[in-house]
Amino acid sequence: MAGSGTPCASCKLLRRRCTPECVFAPYFPAEDARRFATVHRVFGASNVSRMLQEVAPAHRADAVSSLVYEASARVRDPVYGCVAAISSLQQQVSQLQMQLALAHAEILICVQQPQQHGHPPAAAALQEQQQQHVLQNAHHLQDSMWT
Amino acid sequence: MAGSGTPCASCKLLRRRCTPECVFAPYFPAEDARRFATVHRVFGASNVSRMLQEVAPAHRADAVSSLVYEASARVRDPVYGCVAAISSLQQQVSQLQMQLALAHAEILICVQQPQQHGHPPAAAALQEQQQQHVLQNAHHLQDSMWT
Repeated sequence: MAGSGTPCASCKLLRRRCTPECVFAPYFPAEDARRFATVHRVFGASNVSRMLQEVAPAHRADAVSSLVYEASARVRDPVYGCVAAISSLQQQVSQLQMQLALAHAEILICVQQPQQHGHPPAAAALQEQQQQHVLQNAHHLQDSMWT
Repeated sequence: MAGSGTPCASCKLLRRRCTPECVFAPYFPAEDARRFATVHRVFGASNVSRMLQEVAPAHRADAVSSLVYEASARVRDPVYGCVAAISSLQQQVSQLQMQLALAHAEILICVQQPQQHGHPPAAAALQEQQQQHVLQNAHHLQDSMWT
């Protein structure tokens, strides 16, 4: 009710009287009916009510935001929901980690190249060993993505 | 029931008869009671049943996996659920993108520096060719991951 006299979006949808103690009212105003309809469809009103009551009032707005986000993702993608976003981000992280490892290997090669002119053979061999090691690490990172 | 005669984890928890047509039975075997208890707690049995019936049978195992993942995350973190993982991965992507941009800037500086220290033009051109080759190999490696 939130002091306005009109029932909140939740009580309107559930066709019940909206009291000043309504746990939904502060987060589901009457003007935005779709937000509650989405969480109601995916989680069910009684589960949302219980979940809200189980968290401290200071965290309820965040809990509602994350529930609305999850429910919207599930409505858009009934098979994977917001887990699709997690998989996609995990792939992006792996790809970026590999690109970064390759870039670091390239920096090492680039930094060491000018020094090779006139270095004694032992120093050049050591340098080559280090470069191989960096490249191997980069390739290992790439392989481990799929295992 | 899944042909074993014992009710599935869902029917056991809901104290109902498990029929051969039970939509839960293939995905919630009797041995693993916790999986169903978790999705039941967060989404409610009737919502899970409806969501499963709304996706093609070939995608139901994936739908169950993602629902179990989401529900477990919500039980662990009642405020953010699996949205916490999304936020954390988004931050990781931003950090890696920044590190990669810095590494690329460093490569550019490194590539340009030797030419400024009195290298004859022919040697500088050869060096640039070699660096281009390394870059092409790195990009080829990256492209081949997604094809």
